Amino acid sequence: MKSIIVNQNVIDLEYAVRGPIPQRAAILKQQGKKIIPCNIGNPQALGQKPITFYRDVLSLLENPSLINKEKYLLENPISGFSNISNHAIDLSEKLLTKMETGLGAYTDSKGHYFIRESIARFIDNRDDIDSSKMDLQSNPDNIFLTDGASEGAKAILELLITDKNDGIMIPIPQYPLYSATIKRCGGTQINYYPDEDSDWALNKEILEDSLKKAKANKINVKAIVVINPANPTGAILDSDSIMQVVEFAENNDLAIIADEVYQENLYGGKFISFAKAVGYRKIPLFSLHSVSKGFYGECGQRGGYLEVRYPPKISNTDIPFINLLFKLSSVNLCSNTVGQAMIYLMVNPPLADTDAYDKFNLEKISILDDLYLKATLIRESFKEMQGVECFGKIGALYLFPRLNKLPSGTNDFDYCMSLLEETGLCVVNGSGFGQKPGTHHLRIAFLPPKELLKSVLPDWVDFHNRYISQ
Amino acid sequence: MKSIIVNQNVIDLEYAVRGPIPQRAAILKQQGKKIIPCNIGNPQALGQKPITFYRDVLSLLENPSLINKEKYLLENPISGFSNISNHAIDLSEKLLTKMETGLGAYTDSKGHYFIRESIARFIDNRDDIDSSKMDLQSNPDNIFLTDGASEGAKAILELLITDKNDGIMIPIPQYPLYSATIKRCGGTQINYYPDEDSDWALNKEILEDSLKKAKANKINVKAIVVINPANPTGAILDSDSIMQVVEFAENNDLAIIADEVYQENLYGGKFISFAKAVGYRKIPLFSLHSVSKGFYGECGQRGGYLEVRYPPKISNTDIPFINLLFKLSSVNLCSNTVGQAMIYLMVNPPLADTDAYDKFNLEKISILDDLYLKATLIRESFKEMQGVECFGKIGALYLFPRLNKLPSGTNDFDYCMSLLEETGLCVVNGSGFGQKPGTHHLRIAFLPPKELLKSVLPDWVDFHNRYISQ
Repeated sequence: MKSIIVNQNVIDLEYAVRGPIPQRAAILKQQGKKIIPCNIGNPQALGQKPITFYRDVLSLLENPSLINKEKYLLENPISGFSNISNHAIDLSEKLLTKMETGLGAYTDSKGHYFIRESIARFIDNRDDIDSSKMDLQSNPDNIFLTDGASEGAKAILELLITDKNDGIMIPIPQYPLYSATIKRCGGTQINYYPDEDSDWALNKEILEDSLKKAKANKINVKAIVVINPANPTGAILDSDSIMQVVEFAENNDLAIIADEVYQENLYGGKFISFAKAVGYRKIPLFSLHSVSKGFYGECGQRGGYLEVRYPPKISNTDIPFINLLFKLSSVNLCSNTVGQAMIYLMVNPPLADTDAYDKFNLEKISILDDLYLKATLIRESFKEMQGVECFGKIGALYLFPRLNKLPSGTNDFDYCMSLLEETGLCVVNGSGFGQKPGTHHLRIAFLPPKELLKSVLPDWVDFHNRYISQ
Repeated sequence: MKSIIVNQNVIDLEYAVRGPIPQRAAILKQQGKKIIPCNIGNPQALGQKPITFYRDVLSLLENPSLINKEKYLLENPISGFSNISNHAIDLSEKLLTKMETGLGAYTDSKGHYFIRESIARFIDNRDDIDSSKMDLQSNPDNIFLTDGASEGAKAILELLITDKNDGIMIPIPQYPLYSATIKRCGGTQINYYPDEDSDWALNKEILEDSLKKAKANKINVKAIVVINPANPTGAILDSDSIMQVVEFAENNDLAIIADEVYQENLYGGKFISFAKAVGYRKIPLFSLHSVSKGFYGECGQRGGYLEVRYPPKISNTDIPFINLLFKLSSVNLCSNTVGQAMIYLMVNPPLADTDAYDKFNLEKISILDDLYLKATLIRESFKEMQGVECFGKIGALYLFPRLNKLPSGTNDFDYCMSLLEETGLCVVNGSGFGQKPGTHHLRIAFLPPKELLKSVLPDWVDFHNRYISQ
């Protein structure tokens, strides 16, 4: 076949999280080098154990013939083996009844309705919306279950972007799903720069400055993406920054895309959802959540949801926005059923009066405490590295230190590649996420086991201080 | 927010399988009407039981703590409860070792390497490629695990289509994933018409006629889609038709997109893969398969794969085609791990020397026999319907009868809607898949339980003969 021209947008898109440095790490690993993969928020790849309760339920859903057997074993235990909790067994039966067709059938395009109802209750409960505030309640019809949160973000951007004159504001640094998808859809990425030295806070000037530049270039900005807690910086937005975004979106007719997948990864700040912050203001809001992060860390199960509030009115069709999203989800048939079930479990943790509660709670706290401890260990070691500063209340699964003293002629990519070659520590260069021109950073996921971290951090400190004095 | 303009391609795309008729069916169901959903190939939604072996393994992968307990129970059975086979237990342990990180972690973007290796061996074995034909062997590096087969088709079309002058040939009728995705990517759909009265066979004239018309409209045709066994017609392509496609693609510099998800649903014909038919000819070939159909019917688990052969050379970048696909899969992170495991099970059925074999084989044969019986029941009843003809060796999960005698002023959409209202039988109008102008069809998935079918078929015959004599 003669050579062909392919989609330039795909050629141009970049995704550093799985870019050259992780690819080099894979080669080194094949050659026998010990690699510590901190390039991606993939907790179970680094030894985090899954929550027992989740897996108990998922196994019974996959294999309902185990339910009666496990019931019998609960009454007649075999010594030496742990039992599946009564709550997990009961809940599995209940879920199978509600699903009607088990895990093997396609569901509604948007996902099982009872799961979407459950998500709506979770959101209202999280945001203190009681039945007196009916207009603020989440609507299951506007919730879409997705294969991870990424799929929801992609659907929204695909719908909003019509050509290269359509712009989407994204924070710099950002999670490259957004830059890649904007590129893929043929739109224009409009950068805004949270203030690093003020713990990555936002204010009116930052946002308006970005919009003004876009307008000067005749870009029609349609939405602003906010990631909170942030990826890659790990910073938690304070309420003032959030309200600045809301007012800015309202004043400038923008939709908000709120990536809130790290809402349970908080070590010092408080999470305020955009749904709560937007309240009665009729700002189109797209919120994303997933089972991959938090203390659950079930990345491989690919469960996520998208919630839409105040869907925008459309001038080039009478079809409502939600129905267009429905069409896109129909072509995908449905998200995977295990991911759907896992989302249900995420929004329905065992209550204190069930026999699953104690273990669940212990595992949850232990994972979150451990993450905090590891973040602290790494942050402490920055103090021993010359010219390293790290800002923001710790959230998400990442630290994003700034490297102030790289030797001239080198950049953060060179630094991270050398760090990998020398210590086996695989992190991602700040330029993979975007950063203020002239600055250098790296993103490290604070996920490896404590002992491994303790052993590699001195090597990093040593590497760093040698590297910068080249 | 003021009203906005959204992506016209999404507004324009259509997906009848979940269109107005199934949506009406959902409303009727809510109102208490009994609906027999034959609009979609979703076997377990209609009572098909999952294969025990698959679910045994999947449950142990989700919950490895059950492995030792089930081993113990195999030695010390409890009367009244069935055991998980030794083979399922052994295999689960082996898979968990190979996965290293269980089901909870993101895998490589393309999916676990050992699963892709296993798929390659399955393909070679299916196509009688032994080690003497090394150049014909499948390459695991060119295999991508996906969330169902649809995701692979979408990635290929997204890469191939650059603008509305790029054309993709699709059979009419077709599975609307293709028309919808071509529309979504902004390309042009080029119809070709398999010869219904010759059991939907293909010949050179049919293909060249279609291409000539496209060229006259200045369309640059890049690929031809073939669905075999076909959806919606259920027809199985004979070897002559397949070779005609191969020669046509070779002579006209086209890639082939071979949707082969129904390769185990054969009731009278033989499956010949395009990989085998293409052989040493360097025709870019993209083959799709999935765990949703066959006798497995695990639609909800969303497992699929895309195999690429002879990837095309590209003139607008030095990046190889496979690496561009890799970039797209990286942005998705990975397909869901349960779907990946299920693909492994699909390509590694239990062998005769294992204790899982007998039950597995019995369940497999019983599902396939049952499908054939149900297809035959429906086909027989067409004989009692005036002016109904149905062509093609029976394959896939569908029959696609032609309705020759609709009352003037009515079409197949009207017919299917009335059929639904009157009998509860939910089928899809032929126009939802495309059909030769002036013809009318419907697609029925032959999935409902036999007894249910037997009870509704007379109602359908009755409805039909009344409807056409309006």
